[in-house]
Amino acid sequence: MKLLRVGPAGGERPCVLAPDGRVLDLSSITPDIDGGFLAGGGVERVRSALSEGGLPEAGPYERVGAPVARPGKVVCIGLNYSDHAEETGAAVPAEPVVFMKASNTIVGPDDEVLVPRGSVKTDYEVELAVIIGRTARYLSSPEEAAEVIAGYAVANDVSEREFQIERGGQWDKGKSCETFNPLGPWLVTADEIGDPQALALRLWVNGEPRQNGDTKNQIFGVHHVVWYLSQFMVLEPGDVINTGTPAGVAMGMGPEAYLREGDVVELEIDGLGRQRQRMGQA
Amino acid sequence: MKLLRVGPAGGERPCVLAPDGRVLDLSSITPDIDGGFLAGGGVERVRSALSEGGLPEAGPYERVGAPVARPGKVVCIGLNYSDHAEETGAAVPAEPVVFMKASNTIVGPDDEVLVPRGSVKTDYEVELAVIIGRTARYLSSPEEAAEVIAGYAVANDVSEREFQIERGGQWDKGKSCETFNPLGPWLVTADEIGDPQALALRLWVNGEPRQNGDTKNQIFGVHHVVWYLSQFMVLEPGDVINTGTPAGVAMGMGPEAYLREGDVVELEIDGLGRQRQRMGQA
Repeated sequence: MKLLRVGPAGGERPCVLAPDGRVLDLSSITPDIDGGFLAGGGVERVRSALSEGGLPEAGPYERVGAPVARPGKVVCIGLNYSDHAEETGAAVPAEPVVFMKASNTIVGPDDEVLVPRGSVKTDYEVELAVIIGRTARYLSSPEEAAEVIAGYAVANDVSEREFQIERGGQWDKGKSCETFNPLGPWLVTADEIGDPQALALRLWVNGEPRQNGDTKNQIFGVHHVVWYLSQFMVLEPGDVINTGTPAGVAMGMGPEAYLREGDVVELEIDGLGRQRQRMGQA
Repeated sequence: MKLLRVGPAGGERPCVLAPDGRVLDLSSITPDIDGGFLAGGGVERVRSALSEGGLPEAGPYERVGAPVARPGKVVCIGLNYSDHAEETGAAVPAEPVVFMKASNTIVGPDDEVLVPRGSVKTDYEVELAVIIGRTARYLSSPEEAAEVIAGYAVANDVSEREFQIERGGQWDKGKSCETFNPLGPWLVTADEIGDPQALALRLWVNGEPRQNGDTKNQIFGVHHVVWYLSQFMVLEPGDVINTGTPAGVAMGMGPEAYLREGDVVELEIDGLGRQRQRMGQA
């Protein structure tokens, strides 16, 4: 099942993409798609409503928002594909590298992304995002992780490399800029994806292929990552985990490859849909 | 003015500490003390109600919660006192070191704090916390920062040093454990504090003095920090900034100084009140 939110930023309506391609309005079932919806059996209520029929069409809309209303946290895994670790000059990590982004970086999949003021190294990262559906605290094994995952989405983990690496201290400084986490178009429920370690990811800048990877090459798979994080923090319904990016980021290609105002970034993951962002200037 | 929230975790009522020491219930004015309250003139409404009289007493309560309902983000400044940078063996930073904590680490000032499973290096950090009252995006100068600060609170930026430093990657891994950010007892409005760079901070473990610092020794002052952060992220009403800790943390004292189940941590900042946590085991 593909859940989405359509409408102006801050005024999105909850919807579902029906198997016949129609976008159906879920306002009669839930005020929004968020942690409470996911934890409270919302997905099952939508499934029932879909099979019964009668959900109204959403009608015309100008924008797709992020598929989950502002998460409590956005946790990220760094250097989780061996080819990406290599291109950045970093060693393959012995255990997951964890950092965080401000959750107000989340925007819709086709929203404008802003190059920060003073930035010369704004970069892209196509990533498989996990959306948590149940509270996870000290999971006993990676196998248990499957039970707490609501679904998956495409994320662009936009990064400013100078802020991240050359400005002292921790990566978070280059990860939390305004608009730096397009998410969506859909939250695709886990049952529809099957094996999360068999998904191709691709990203283009101005039509030129830049990233072309596969989640089978993740150093730490999705279930391992969710289990691991639950040893260090309490994951809650609606939380988002960006599980790392494959090779091909601008940082590995030289100064001319970084993003500038007017550039167009497109990205997609098998079964999870496609994003398209035009770069603006903050 | 001193705002607080009393009642069971998740069911706190908004209150104000009156000048005569009574705790008065603000439920008639706002459902909670959060970003919306701070951004929407809530402080002024409380001030008027206080001067008019007639607010009811809160009555008995068993617990004080954090003074602001779950913030959108908790941003932290590292190594912001020269004596603390020295004790950790780090250089004095040229610009603020920034990292983040999950916002679900926030608990009340006297709540139990849990030593994480597998932890042998759980540490304390008394810190001046800033609570944001208005959206801050690319502030033009540190002087502008005063306008976006709602007030201040005591924070304990609890940290697991092995997770933070020895487990690969970024500090966040040792900062986001369950219960790792006691906050309060009060949100003290900025007008009542005056100069935020003239506040003494103190912390004890089992009655033994450990930290005894002063915000005058911050490398980057509060207004500089808020201005600086606004260049890298959008600060929003209700957000919390932990502005760093002075010398005296367990990391600088050897293995026997780390926190264990049963230890009692007490901390206070001039004008901002006092916290007391008993350590439990996750």
